[in-house]
Amino acid sequence: MRTLYHYPLCPFSRKVRVVLAEKKLEFIEQIERFWERRDEFLELSPGGDLPVLVEEGGTVLGDANAICEYLDEVHREPPLLPPEPEARAETRRLVGWFDRKFHDEVTRNLVDEKVTKRLTTLKGAPDSRLIRAGFANIHQHLEYIAWLAERRPWLAGPHYSLADVAAAAQISCIDYIGDVPWDRHPGAKDWYARVKSRPSFRVLLSDQLPGVPPPKHYSDLDF
Amino acid sequence: MRTLYHYPLCPFSRKVRVVLAEKKLEFIEQIERFWERRDEFLELSPGGDLPVLVEEGGTVLGDANAICEYLDEVHREPPLLPPEPEARAETRRLVGWFDRKFHDEVTRNLVDEKVTKRLTTLKGAPDSRLIRAGFANIHQHLEYIAWLAERRPWLAGPHYSLADVAAAAQISCIDYIGDVPWDRHPGAKDWYARVKSRPSFRVLLSDQLPGVPPPKHYSDLDF
Repeated sequence: MRTLYHYPLCPFSRKVRVVLAEKKLEFIEQIERFWERRDEFLELSPGGDLPVLVEEGGTVLGDANAICEYLDEVHREPPLLPPEPEARAETRRLVGWFDRKFHDEVTRNLVDEKVTKRLTTLKGAPDSRLIRAGFANIHQHLEYIAWLAERRPWLAGPHYSLADVAAAAQISCIDYIGDVPWDRHPGAKDWYARVKSRPSFRVLLSDQLPGVPPPKHYSDLDF
Repeated sequence: MRTLYHYPLCPFSRKVRVVLAEKKLEFIEQIERFWERRDEFLELSPGGDLPVLVEEGGTVLGDANAICEYLDEVHREPPLLPPEPEARAETRRLVGWFDRKFHDEVTRNLVDEKVTKRLTTLKGAPDSRLIRAGFANIHQHLEYIAWLAERRPWLAGPHYSLADVAAAAQISCIDYIGDVPWDRHPGAKDWYARVKSRPSFRVLLSDQLPGVPPPKHYSDLDF
């Protein structure tokens, strides 16, 4: 059986968990306290980064993007990248947008500062300047999601894709700590409600981090 | 003719320039002063990010990773990703390592702080704490390159790949400002000499940024 090393509030781990669920692939969950930098884990992940997927034969796969592409190549149904090169490029552009821009401008500022720092006790006190930046930045990103979702059934085109997975992975972490201003962004909320209702998303909605319970609406499909 | 919007010291632009050269694809170079946020450019790139590739038919492609994957899919020779899914995953893992980890720990701290901030006059004074962190971090990354290159002909395996392109794109920016401690890292230097001698790398070695001349060894194949 394959094993996924992950952490509940790591958005990149969440991407892989959703892709595994979309592909209906079973896996053993190994919650990794990455900040402890266990020797056995560092042997799998030289930078100590999550997620890591160890396949049944022992193949070690790192980097969420590489893992998602691998799973989509090896387990084709349902496809999470479209067949046309231009459409694949647009999907990957959005994956990069959410993995990098959304993460660095929003998720890191809110989730890492408010929760991860406290749980891991590694990087010092929360930085209120960064938290304010995260709250300021989230609006334009939710507007961009609404803008895309107005023009296309899903973020990258007619089909649910890795772009939706990447966006929802980031947003679900922020929703877990109750910081998504849904009432001001009905377009993004409508898209997220559709993502949330997919069976693959249940794996995330049942997360319970010790000492950090999610708000009631987190797992509510009709939020 | 396709047009590439890029900036000489942007490592992500450099990746695409090398891939275009590897595939022997002609393109018009448009050097974009991204910090000026021209309206016409923002229409192509909603986040104002480089690079952007506009194909002859008008298709607009953003995000360096998405563009490189697209070019490798549409123009197959020479392939820059191996055919086997596991080997592709390892290549993409390393692309992510250099695009994200190397960039954030080294390139950003050195190139952005020492040069880009000054040229763009947008983000304030250079932060000496970040510059010191960049100089401290570069050693472990060059050691990792040497470690990989000792075990494999190229960074991701038997063939030159997007992993080599990603690593060399970052390092070439730092080498342009003369900050790679080559004398302490002969293994990484040997690998970089092999990258540098490829015809596709000439496009980078002829760069001349106004007011910021590269050191003499920058374009020297026998450095």
